[in-house]
This record gives sequence, structure tokens and C-alpha cells, in this order.
Amino acid sequence: MKLWQKNTDSLKDVEIFTVGRDREFDLLLAPYDVLGNMAHATMLASIGLLTESEKDDLLAELKNIYAKTQSEGDDKFTISDDVEDVHSQIEFLLTQKLGDTGKKIHSARSRNDQVLVDIKLFLRSEIEKTVSSVQTLFKLLIEKSEQWKNVLMPGYTHLQIAMPSSFGLWLGAYAESLVDDTIQLKAAYNIVNKNPLGSAAGYGSSFPINRTMTTELLGFGDLNYNVVYAQMGRGKAERITAMALANVADTLARFSMDACMYCNQNFDFIHFPAELTTGSSIMPHKKNPDVFELVRAQCNRIKALPNEIMMMTTNLPLGYNRDLQLLKEHLFPALTMLRSCIDIVELMINNMTVRDNILKEEKYKYLFSVEEVNKLVLEGVPFRDAYKQVGLSIENGTFNYENIELHHTHEGSLGNLCNDKIETTMYKVLAGFHFEDAHKAIDKLIQ
Amino acid sequence: MKLWQKNTDSLKDVEIFTVGRDREFDLLLAPYDVLGNMAHATMLASIGLLTESEKDDLLAELKNIYAKTQSEGDDKFTISDDVEDVHSQIEFLLTQKLGDTGKKIHSARSRNDQVLVDIKLFLRSEIEKTVSSVQTLFKLLIEKSEQWKNVLMPGYTHLQIAMPSSFGLWLGAYAESLVDDTIQLKAAYNIVNKNPLGSAAGYGSSFPINRTMTTELLGFGDLNYNVVYAQMGRGKAERITAMALANVADTLARFSMDACMYCNQNFDFIHFPAELTTGSSIMPHKKNPDVFELVRAQCNRIKALPNEIMMMTTNLPLGYNRDLQLLKEHLFPALTMLRSCIDIVELMINNMTVRDNILKEEKYKYLFSVEEVNKLVLEGVPFRDAYKQVGLSIENGTFNYENIELHHTHEGSLGNLCNDKIETTMYKVLAGFHFEDAHKAIDKLIQ
Amino acid sequence: MKLWQKNTDSLKDVEIFTVGRDREFDLLLAPYDVLGNMAHATMLASIGLLTESEKDDLLAELKNIYAKTQSEGDDKFTISDDVEDVHSQIEFLLTQKLGDTGKKIHSARSRNDQVLVDIKLFLRSEIEKTVSSVQTLFKLLIEKSEQWKNVLMPGYTHLQIAMPSSFGLWLGAYAESLVDDTIQLKAAYNIVNKNPLGSAAGYGSSFPINRTMTTELLGFGDLNYNVVYAQMGRGKAERITAMALANVADTLARFSMDACMYCNQNFDFIHFPAELTTGSSIMPHKKNPDVFELVRAQCNRIKALPNEIMMMTTNLPLGYNRDLQLLKEHLFPALTMLRSCIDIVELMINNMTVRDNILKEEKYKYLFSVEEVNKLVLEGVPFRDAYKQVGLSIENGTFNYENIELHHTHEGSLGNLCNDKIETTMYKVLAGFHFEDAHKAIDKLIQ
Amino acid sequence: MKLWQKNTDSLKDVEIFTVGRDREFDLLLAPYDVLGNMAHATMLASIGLLTESEKDDLLAELKNIYAKTQSEGDDKFTISDDVEDVHSQIEFLLTQKLGDTGKKIHSARSRNDQVLVDIKLFLRSEIEKTVSSVQTLFKLLIEKSEQWKNVLMPGYTHLQIAMPSSFGLWLGAYAESLVDDTIQLKAAYNIVNKNPLGSAAGYGSSFPINRTMTTELLGFGDLNYNVVYAQMGRGKAERITAMALANVADTLARFSMDACMYCNQNFDFIHFPAELTTGSSIMPHKKNPDVFELVRAQCNRIKALPNEIMMMTTNLPLGYNRDLQLLKEHLFPALTMLRSCIDIVELMINNMTVRDNILKEEKYKYLFSVEEVNKLVLEGVPFRDAYKQVGLSIENGTFNYENIELHHTHEGSLGNLCNDKIETTMYKVLAGFHFEDAHKAIDKLIQ
Repeated sequence: MKLWQKNTDSLKDVEIFTVGRDREFDLLLAPYDVLGNMAHATMLASIGLLTESEKDDLLAELKNIYAKTQSEGDDKFTISDDVEDVHSQIEFLLTQKLGDTGKKIHSARSRNDQVLVDIKLFLRSEIEKTVSSVQTLFKLLIEKSEQWKNVLMPGYTHLQIAMPSSFGLWLGAYAESLVDDTIQLKAAYNIVNKNPLGSAAGYGSSFPINRTMTTELLGFGDLNYNVVYAQMGRGKAERITAMALANVADTLARFSMDACMYCNQNFDFIHFPAELTTGSSIMPHKKNPDVFELVRAQCNRIKALPNEIMMMTTNLPLGYNRDLQLLKEHLFPALTMLRSCIDIVELMINNMTVRDNILKEEKYKYLFSVEEVNKLVLEGVPFRDAYKQVGLSIENGTFNYENIELHHTHEGSLGNLCNDKIETTMYKVLAGFHFEDAHKAIDKLIQ
Repeated sequence: MKLWQKNTDSLKDVEIFTVGRDREFDLLLAPYDVLGNMAHATMLASIGLLTESEKDDLLAELKNIYAKTQSEGDDKFTISDDVEDVHSQIEFLLTQKLGDTGKKIHSARSRNDQVLVDIKLFLRSEIEKTVSSVQTLFKLLIEKSEQWKNVLMPGYTHLQIAMPSSFGLWLGAYAESLVDDTIQLKAAYNIVNKNPLGSAAGYGSSFPINRTMTTELLGFGDLNYNVVYAQMGRGKAERITAMALANVADTLARFSMDACMYCNQNFDFIHFPAELTTGSSIMPHKKNPDVFELVRAQCNRIKALPNEIMMMTTNLPLGYNRDLQLLKEHLFPALTMLRSCIDIVELMINNMTVRDNILKEEKYKYLFSVEEVNKLVLEGVPFRDAYKQVGLSIENGTFNYENIELHHTHEGSLGNLCNDKIETTMYKVLAGFHFEDAHKAIDKLIQ
Repeated sequence: MKLWQKNTDSLKDVEIFTVGRDREFDLLLAPYDVLGNMAHATMLASIGLLTESEKDDLLAELKNIYAKTQSEGDDKFTISDDVEDVHSQIEFLLTQKLGDTGKKIHSARSRNDQVLVDIKLFLRSEIEKTVSSVQTLFKLLIEKSEQWKNVLMPGYTHLQIAMPSSFGLWLGAYAESLVDDTIQLKAAYNIVNKNPLGSAAGYGSSFPINRTMTTELLGFGDLNYNVVYAQMGRGKAERITAMALANVADTLARFSMDACMYCNQNFDFIHFPAELTTGSSIMPHKKNPDVFELVRAQCNRIKALPNEIMMMTTNLPLGYNRDLQLLKEHLFPALTMLRSCIDIVELMINNMTVRDNILKEEKYKYLFSVEEVNKLVLEGVPFRDAYKQVGLSIENGTFNYENIELHHTHEGSLGNLCNDKIETTMYKVLAGFHFEDAHKAIDKLIQ
Repeated sequence: MKLWQKNTDSLKDVEIFTVGRDREFDLLLAPYDVLGNMAHATMLASIGLLTESEKDDLLAELKNIYAKTQSEGDDKFTISDDVEDVHSQIEFLLTQKLGDTGKKIHSARSRNDQVLVDIKLFLRSEIEKTVSSVQTLFKLLIEKSEQWKNVLMPGYTHLQIAMPSSFGLWLGAYAESLVDDTIQLKAAYNIVNKNPLGSAAGYGSSFPINRTMTTELLGFGDLNYNVVYAQMGRGKAERITAMALANVADTLARFSMDACMYCNQNFDFIHFPAELTTGSSIMPHKKNPDVFELVRAQCNRIKALPNEIMMMTTNLPLGYNRDLQLLKEHLFPALTMLRSCIDIVELMINNMTVRDNILKEEKYKYLFSVEEVNKLVLEGVPFRDAYKQVGLSIENGTFNYENIELHHTHEGSLGNLCNDKIETTMYKVLAGFHFEDAHKAIDKLIQ
């Protein structure tokens, strides 16, 4: 038979195609797979599917493997080329070391719920890291907003000169944007932080397993109860995390667009040291803001991620489908990339200088037209009539303004940035994560 | 001059192009614009920009207009063809009735923050309605899950026969899916439920306005403090709402895909009365599940909405841009459409019947292979060896199983759906919205 | 029975939900449905399924209906509220008028291939109209490029001042962009211009129909041969047309972004008369380029359309699914909107003025750094050394340049725009459409 | 100063962030960069910016480098860690070897047009490879369609049993789909196959370069004339290529969805040898079609690519922006992945078997309802009356059919697949590429 003849080759082609880059991304899941194994083994012993001594052997060996997953040295955890994935590798290591005891650990579970629990634990940890990065950037933006609260800049609408703004307002706006982004991260965290373990292949097990116990052992906030829904969580956890990332990414991308525009010579509002810009191969005068262009691009790419995930999961039949494996390839690097973008933006802001006295230039005089309207209003002219009066003076070329001392006083305005209130709101959101609950459980497992 | 000659025509073309379908969507914002006017007028009086009697006149007239926005009769609120938008229409009505008093109401604000506050109030109300619809569907799914908890169906992975499932599990899974979707709706609600009023054109006002007062009057949970960020909220509120809708839509689309598959003759798991299906122009035997196909399509379209909004807002310069106007055109109808989809899915589920005894068919026998493995495990065979043993019997064609009574007992499994726990979780999420806070404030404003 | 009791209501709900906005969009298909009927009837007679006199009666009546579809008067074609779609309406009109003869016309076809052929004919015509609009804009851009070929403007890279450019280059670039966009439109036209009629419900007919004949009668360039593929064309024709639109839309959106930036006061490169700009409700000095902002937004929305179509069609089971009906709702208006955008951009360009002597401003002096490098190169200094020399002078603040007469001569440069070559290329692409083939066939059908 | 203190680190961070994975993807561009260098050097000599002997030295050395780019051995081309990109590496190698002569090659060009020409040449070659793969799959589909032209299968609409189809129709449909996909690839090829070299940084050069000469030397079909447009081609070439890929990907993804469904046990239409399927960690009976699931996922991901590219390029300011660099990261691997998907689908189809006599099963009897209607029509009953008559018999449960010999004869139907016509159409499309033009030029350059 023809197939038989090329049997081995076919298998190899199929294996190469199906495994793809999976081993690479599975390495990131390794520590979480070990944790899941620990919780599962402990639970199996509690229902009599493992003896106490089998459990102890497994936990001891799993701690060894965990240590390897945390190592960067020669003993670091790897997945052999002839092993399909991280789950098989760990089961193999346990069986190699412990014989029949190792062969027992896969009772009452499936790789489907293993990878689910790995991804949930991984995303939970990644969201926490992201929140931490966001918090650092938030602090810096508040700090710089305060530092430059009195340095004015033009405010635009329709990209036309509109009304006076300030560097304090500009940077504070992005700080406040991060507050709302953190609310989205929290929703994602809450959805991700639920235990799918015990759903097996998506239809549960006839063994009397104790899912509440594994939930507690792994420090999850709750269970994905219904086992079919637990399996539906694959793809959904990824999509919801991607949506949360997209919001942070949008905040960074917008800021980067602003920065590129403001360091353009026609605006000339901000400067960066030459060391943080790049040159041209042909034009000897160039100092390009490549960092911001790349942050913009990386972040806009992350904004395309939720759509990509949806395109890959739309109209899939119910139950696990191998399609889901590929979601890792773009989501996992995006998590790291978003934090890199935050770090590099911090570097740039830390080295940014802002130009003073911008508003003194003639071209900005109409920024003050509303001030003139408001003066008339205070004198009793109805707003709509005052508006017309000033409008006419502009049309006639007679508009002028005295160099007004701006004294905006209301909440969130030039003269009253409310950065303290914004900080309070942020800290209230942050307090709602309760990261410590997960930490305690994991520390106990690996102690 | 050429332009001058065709001046009028040009203007008309520009007006038609720029107004577009805006009047149509602005009608939906009308009641919220009135509420914003009420809060603004009350606040203006408190800082002396209106007298008490001017304020009273304005509030009285605004109540009249509000009544019109709630009417479907001849006196219902409309936007004249020669008026650009809802904000201009209402200012016009006030000025027409109250003369100079009407001309004063636009002090210390801009259409930019008016439309922002309108959209926030509108989206807040729409999210509430969506949550209410979701809750009704949730209850129905739980009810049907309980009703059919003992009716078994095949569970698939890779669309291959896998392990026994049940209609109880299937429907309960979608109920639990709605819990997580509601968490996302809550995050959207919290982000939307913040007051942008007072940000004027995005750079605040030099009048000593009291934004805390309007926040309370309109029942917002908090302020968008920074005025530049308040303006950045345009587009962001829409995107985040669209993301929340997309999650609910995905749950419905998946369910619809299942339903289309399960009423296909090769599966034949569920049935609908002929009255709820449609026929063919050529094939006299057809009873097509068009409702589910259209729910699937409408919901997949809604899933494309966050991307559409991002494509339209990416890399826009800071500050209001007219691009934002167009976000209404697809988002606003999507809000209504999603609720229509929920309603029609409820109708379908209410009239659905499920087939009994499906698993007795010969083709489903391998569903029980894991049960056979588990039996061996309980007899002490290590899992991996038991797996091999049963696998061999399947390969040899000798596999058989006694008609096992399934007795899954763990959380979320066939025999223990945990629908009560899922309900508890749902009600905990719902309790976090605090819709009553907004209701009380609005009731007080319009009393 | 509960269902029976609410039977009528259910049906009505289902009908409202399933018909949706379909009648609205079907009106656009009406003339094409009549043409398809004409071709089908002629063919049926040729194979003996209609007599000659039955065919003649049908054609005569179909011509009457065609006339109505072209009318805007009281006799214009409408779809009754109790009729499901355009196909049913026309079959109903024929049966009403011609009795049994009308009932015969649906032999050997299905609404599935009717709507397919309607959409193909409609899109074919819409692509032609789009090409015509593109051609008009192309001419205008070439004309303006020539008019301002000697007016210099700064060229930017990384949004940093780079090298001298010109308004001639700027506008000519967009003209050439439309050439490539037209290549894509032609590919879409070729794919759309194939006959699906005769595929019936997607599996053909056992009648000996003559599909080659209907292909010729309708002026199609070719057949979709395989009937299953003909049905797969639904969704695909829409996607490919949307992709072609997206390319034109991207060209317009980019131009609009440029225009918004160039009329910003910091650049101040171009101006539009006040009549074509819009004002602000609060700032009396504003003249906003709303037209370009809305073109940008409408075009960016069109760019999201291919993705939306893919999200709605991904992973659908083979064969017609009702999901496909909804593709009309966003694609059809996009076709008209894109042409509106082209028209309004033409109006704006026709009234645009450009600023002279921009490059004389001090801030633009580094635009000439490469000229200084090139001078050294011409004196024999290797490029990389010349680059360093000039770079050093810039760093030392000693850089200066004589007001160089720019004399770029190569193809496509400042001094040699090659607009004639670009026009030649465009006309070669346009000649490849052969619109006349379709015109001749249709004229013959309706003569 | 703080910045100064961490100066070196900052630079390193910036460099790591900005270079990113660029060196990895630049390696793919290396041979094309060499070709561009050869054409540029030849042209520079023709206008006197290089002497003949300088040119000869450069060409000789460039041939050496070209050979390295084609090698997999120890001498293979690499980019040093301290070199930014492929362009710098090659200029460095030339300068290292040839001294001042090497320093001269960058006259009259910029890295911007180098990378543009590299990408155009690379994409041109990749599209050709893709077309070649598509052609192989096309042939296989036609072959298998012919092989199984008499094996019937059910045809579905709305995923409900509809009318008889065949494996011949099913596979032939996908062959014809590839024809239209190839039309799109041709449009992409024509757009990509234009020479941007000479546009320098996007604003041309004041040297009298000869762009027509480099166009011919590199075998391009035409020039991108306008230098600003040439630069706008970055991002556009990528988007249009991605759109063309998306069409092929959609064809493969749909086929994979069909295959997954048809090898599900409820359909059971097709089979694959166990060696090409995968097992489960828990269910010993599983033979999952992972290959098709992963093809589906990879292809759906490719379908998300045009949107991703548009999200990253929307509303960018005119002129090169560093954002464009990142387009390589997802597009380049997608080109290879699409071909891998085609290869593996070929492997699967080559080993697929189809089930005979499917339609004999009782559940498929209504497939023949239209045949019964058609019989009545041939007896003179008007279609609409015949439809009702058969519909009634179905409702009464009296419907039956004689085992009809199907004798569909029309173009593209069961009995007349027209695979020969489809092949003719495909070869006509293929002939339009004229790949040989590019081959000849490149062969001459590197001979």
C-alpha cells in the first residue's frame, strides 16, 4: 500500500505540522503545569486514588521539577524533541522516576483540563505582572503631570487650535486612562481566576473527585462549575485577556502618537536626548522618535489580537478543537511585549523635556477666544450673544486678548488637576484584585 | 469666483455629507441630553451664572421637552431638518420659549461634553437593559438545564465522539457563560458610569463650575476627572461597551451554532415546531433553523464591532475629531439587536424539545471507553496501563461495555450540575451593579 | 398546547426577526432580479419547459416590472409587507398577471441562485460605478499635481522634517495610488462577473438547463461552473468586493489624514474656504475640516468591512446558510458611501488653495542637508564620508546651505513627475475591464 | 546628570527594543537586498557616480555575498549582532572588502527604498511560490473530483438535508475556488511587481539616476513612478499580499471545516488512516483530525492578517514611519505557513477514502423530493403546484421515491462536472503572470 510505504514520512510531516511551535510556548506553562499536578495529586490521595505515600513521592518529585522550571542553569526544565507537550513531559519524568506511581497521576483528568488550568494560572500571573507595570507607569505620569502642571500647551480639537491646555493635563489624562484600563484588567482577572481542573475532556469524570479542594489548593477565586463551560473557557479566557490588553495598548498607542506629533518640528512641544532617538542612513540631521513609532505599532498590533482570536474561534463546534492550541502563539508574546512597551515608554518619559512659553507665539492667540466670550458672559451678556460678538471681532481681524492669567478652578481643569483623586480611584481599583489570595495558596503548595 | 458661484450647492453637499444619519441616532440621545441640560442648569444657578428664576424656567421647560422624548404621539420630540443635532434643537427650543434665558444655558460647556454625557447616560441605560435581558435568558437556561438534567447526549471533542454529556450540562454551560459575560458588562458599566460633563471642548472652563454637583445630580458613580481624559472617553466608552457586547454575542453565536448542528438530521438531537422554522422555494421538505442562523450572523457581526471601532479611532490626534460621530451608527443598533437576539433565542428554547435515548445507538458506544478504563483503575491498574488495555480491545474490535449507570458526582458534572452555585455567583455579580443609584438620581431630576 | 396558543405571535416575531431589513436592501436588487428572470425564462423556453408564447408573455411582463424598478414615480417597484423578498414579489406579480405561466418560472432554479445572480449583477454594476468615480478623482489629482508641480512643501519621514517635496508630488502620489486600487477593482470585477445561475439550491438541477445561454444573455464573462462552488461564491463575492473597496478607502483615508494635518495651524500648508468648514458651539474662531474627518472615518469603517464579512462567514458549514443574508446590510451602503466620499473629496480639492514659499521658513533648513551631502559626492567624496561631514556641521551648529535651485530630473521626482506615464498606466488598466460586454448584453435583454 | 549616568544602558534598551526581531526577518530579505545593490551599482556607473572598475568590483563582491545568502553551510550569510539590519551589513561587507568604493554605493538612495525594493522582490518571489503550491493542490482536487465523480453524498443547505451531491462536486468546487483565488494573487503580483528603487527616503534624489534602468535590471513589470507613492507602497504591498493570501486561506479553512465534519461519526463520509490522525490522553478510542483543525486555525489566522496590517497602518502620517518595520513579523511567516497548509492538505487528500452508498440510508430520502417535483413538472404541472403536491405528501408521511437514476446534464452539475473547463480557466489565469520575465532578468544579474 502506498500509504504504508511512506508511512513514517507521513507521520513525521503530520507531527511537525501539528506540534508546530507548541513546545516553545509550553515551556512558559511548565511551572503552572507542575502546580496543577501537585493539586491534582493531593486531591487524588484525598479520595483514595493514590495512597499517602504515592502522593508524597509525587509531590517531592514535582517540587524538583518545579525548581527546574525556575532555573536558568544547565538543569533547567526542557521538553524533549520526541515528547509532544509539557503535560506528556512531566508525566514522563514522574513515570521515569516513580514507575507505576507516575502512571497513576493521569486518573480523572485529561490534557484538555490540564492545559486549561495551566493557561488560567499563567494568565492570572501575567495579568498581575501587567497590572504591576501599569501601576508604575501610572505613578510616573502622575508625577510628571504634577511637575509640569503650570506649563501650558495648545489644546486642539479637529486638530485645529482650540483652547489652552497644559502638560499637566496631557500627562494626567493618560494616568486616568490607565485607571479605566485597570478596571478591565480586573474583570479579566476575575474571569480567568476560576478553576477548570476536573472538567477532564470537557465532560467531567465518574471518579468522585473534589474540585473544591483543587480550587483552594491553587488559590483560585472560584470554580468554573459546569464542566462543559469549563472547556468553553478555552479561547474565552484568551479573548477576554486580549481585550483587556487591547485597552492598555490603546492608551499607550495614543500617547505614542501624541509624542511623535509633539516632537515634530512644526509642533516642537517636547524633546528627547539624541541617545534615545535614531538617525537616518541618508539624512545626517535626523533624530527620529523610533521608540514611540514602534510602541505605537506594537500596541496597535495588540489591539488587533482580540479580533484575531475571535476569527480563529468563531463557529467552532462545541468541545475542544485543536484550533485552540494556536491561540498561544500571538497572545503569549503580546503579554511580554505590552510590558516592554510600558518599560520603554517610562524610559522615554523620564528623559523627556517640555518647551516653555509655547502659547506666546502669535499663531496661538485664538486659543483665548473663549476666555473673551466668558468675560462678556460674566458681564451679563447671554452666552450665545457673547459668542457672536467675539466671533465677529475674529472675522473682522480686530480680535485681541489681554494676556490672561488662566485661573481654571473646577475639578480636573488646568488649575485643579485632581491627581490626588485619580490616585485614590486607582488604588481602590488595585485593592480589588486580592492578588495575595493566589500568592498564599501557591506559596503553600511549593513550600 | 467659481466657489462663490456654486456656494450654496457646496454648502448643501457639505451639510448633507457631514450630518449624515446623525439626526436619526441623536433622537436616541434626546432624553439624556435633556437630563444633562437639567443638571447643567441647576449647577449654573448654584455658581451664579443663572438666577434661581432663570433656572426654574429652564427646568420647567426641560421637563416638557423630556416628556416629549418619552412620547410616541403627535407631540413627540423631533429634530428639524434645518437643525444640525439634538443639542442645537434643545437649545433652540429653550431660546424660542425663554428668550435670553435660553441663550445662557450653553455657558461653560461645549457640544463636545454634551454629546459625551449623553452617550455615557445612554450607554449606562443600555447596558442595564442588556443585563436585564441576559438575566432572563440565564434563568431560562438554568430552568431547562434542570428539566433535562437526566437526558444524555454525546459529548464531542475534535467533533469526534468523546464521552457522555447531557442536555442539562449543555444548557447549564451557556448559563454559566453568561455569568462571566456579565462580569464584563459590569466593568463596562463602571467605566461608562463616570461624568464627563464640565470638560467642555476637552480643556475645561475658566468658570468655577461644580462638576461634583452634576455628577451627583445625574447619579454617576464618579467623575472623569481630568478634562482631557474625559474627552478621550469618547470612542473608549464605545469600544469598551462593544467589547462587553461581543462577549455576550459570542455566547449566543456559539449556542446558535450548536443548535443548527443539533437539529441537523445527522445529529437529530433537538427539534423545533414547524412554525418556528422556514421553508425553501424549491425543496418542499425543508424546515430550516433560520432563526439560529441569523442570531449567529448578527452576533458574529457584533463581535466585529470592537475591531471596527478601533479601526476608526486608531492614531487619531488628541482631542475631539469628527470621526467619533460615526461610532454611533453601528454601535447603537447593535445594542438593540443583541437584545432582540436574546429574546428570539428565548422563544426558540421555550419551544425546543430534546430527543431521548440517543446514546443507545450503536455508533455512540465508544463514549463509554473511559468508563471501562476507570473501572480497571478502581481495580488497581495504573491509569496509563488501563488506558492501553482498553485501547487494545478497541483496536481488536472486542471492546464492549455493560450499560453503565453513570454516577458522576463531582462539582459541575453530569450528576451534580451545581446550577444553584452558578445562580449564586450570578446574583453576586448582579448585585454589584447598583443600578438603583442611577435610578434614584434620575427620578429626582425629572420628578 | 402552549406553543399553539401563542402560535400567531411566535410566527410574527420569527418573521420580523428573520426578514429584518431585507426588503430594504432587496429593492436595490430588483432590476437585477428581473434581468435574471428574463434570462431564465428565455432559457427555459429553449429547452421546452416553457412554450414560446409563455416566454413572450413573461418577457413582456418582466419588461414592465423592469421599468418600475427604474422609476422614482408613484408606479415604482415596491415589495409588499406580506411578501418575504424581491424574488417572491416578482414571482407573485407574474402569477397575478399571467396565472399558471407565472407559476412555471421557478422551474429548475432556487431563490439561492436567484439571489446569487442578483448580487453578482448588482456588484458588477456597482464596481463599474466605483471605477468611474475613481477615474474622475484620478483626473482631478493629476490636474492639480500639474498645477502645483513647482510649489514646494516639506517632506517628512518619521513625521520629522526630511527632504523637500512638492504639492505636485503629494497629489500625484494619490493619483498613482488609485491606479493600483483599480487593479484590485479589476480582479474583483473579474471574479464577480461569472454566472452562478443554474446552480439552483447549490446542487444543480436534473432539468437539462443551458447555463451557457444564460451566461451570454446576461453578459457574464464566464460561468461559475461547479454548482457547489457557485453557491460558495455567496460571501466570497462580497468579501472580495469589500477588499477592493478597502483599498480605495485606504487611499482616501490617508489623503484625508494628510489634509487634516496640513490645514492645522502648525503646518498651515493648505486652506479651504470657510463655507466648506464647520464651526464650534463654544469657540467662535473655529474652522474645522469636518469633511475630511468624516471621509477618514467612513473610509476606515469600510476598511473594517472585509474583516466583518469574514467574521460572519468563517467556519460556516458548506451550502447556503441564512447568515449570508446579512452581508448586504453593511456592504451595500458602503458601495454608495465610498462614492460619496470620492465626490466630496473632489469638491474639497477643487476649492483647496496651497501656501507658497513654505520652505523659506528657518525651521525647514535641514530639509537641504542631503543636497549638501550630494554636492560633496559630486566633488568626489565617498557618500558615507560626505554624510559624516555634513552631520558634523549640523551637530556643531555650522550647517548652512545656499538657496539651492532643486533640479531633480529622474522618473517620478520633483522635477519630473511622470504624470503622463501614470495616466498611461491607468488607461491600460481601465481598458481591461471591458464594461461594454456587459452593457451590450443587458441592452439587448431589456430593449 | 541622571540621563548621562545611565546613558549606555538606555541606549542598549532602546536598541533592543527598536531592532526587535528585525535581524531574523531581514535574513529572508538578504538575497533580494544583494540584487537591489547590483542593479543600483550598475545604474550608478551608467550616470558616472561610479567608475566602471568600481562597479565591477562591487558586482563581483555582491555575487560572493549572493552566494552566501543561498548557502546553508558554514559560510552562510549572517547579520552581526552589532549591525542594525541587512542593508547596513551588506554595505559594511562591501566597505570592509573594497574600502572607499563600498562607501560610495549608498549615493542616491536610502534604506527606505532599499527595504522597499527588497520587500517587493521578496513578495514577488513568495507569490510565485504560493501560486505554484496552489496549482499543485488544484491538480489534485481535479484528479480526485474525477475519481469520485460517481460517488454520491448528501448536499445540505442551512445544514439541513437538501439535495443529492457528490464527492466529485465537492472536490471540484474547491478546485474552482482556487481559480478565483489565483486571480487575486495575480492582482497582488501585478501591484507588487513595480520598482520603488530610486525613491530614496520617499522624496527622490537630485542625482540624475535612471530608474527605468533598474526596473529592467530587476525584471519589474513597471515602476512606481511618483516617489511619494513609491514610499506609500510600504504597507500597501503587504496589505494587498495579505488580502490575496486570505482568499486562499479561506478556501483551505472551509475545506478543513468540511473535512472535520465529514469524518465525524454522525456524518461518516470520509476516512483517514490512523497514522494521519491523533489520539487522546484519556480516551483510548480517539482518532482526531488534528491536521484539519490546525489548517483551519492557521488559515483563519491568516484571514485576520489584512485587518492586523490595516490596524497598524491606519492614520499614520505620510512618509516612512518605523511602524512599518513590524509588518514583516506576521506576514513573512504567514507566507510559509500557507504553503505548509497546502502541502499537508495534499497529504491528507492523497490518503483520504470516501464512503460509498451513503444515500441509501433512510434518513436521506428527502434529498429526492425535488426530483419528484421535477417529474410532475415534466408531466405538465406548473412548478409551484407540483411543489405543493409533493410538500403535502411529505407532511402526510406518504412521500416516497423510486430509486432515481440521477441524470444531471447541465454545466457544472453532478453528471457534467466541467472539470476540463475549470482547468482551462485556471491555465488562462496562470499564463497571465509571466513569471519568466522576472526570472530572465534575475538570472542575468547573478549569472
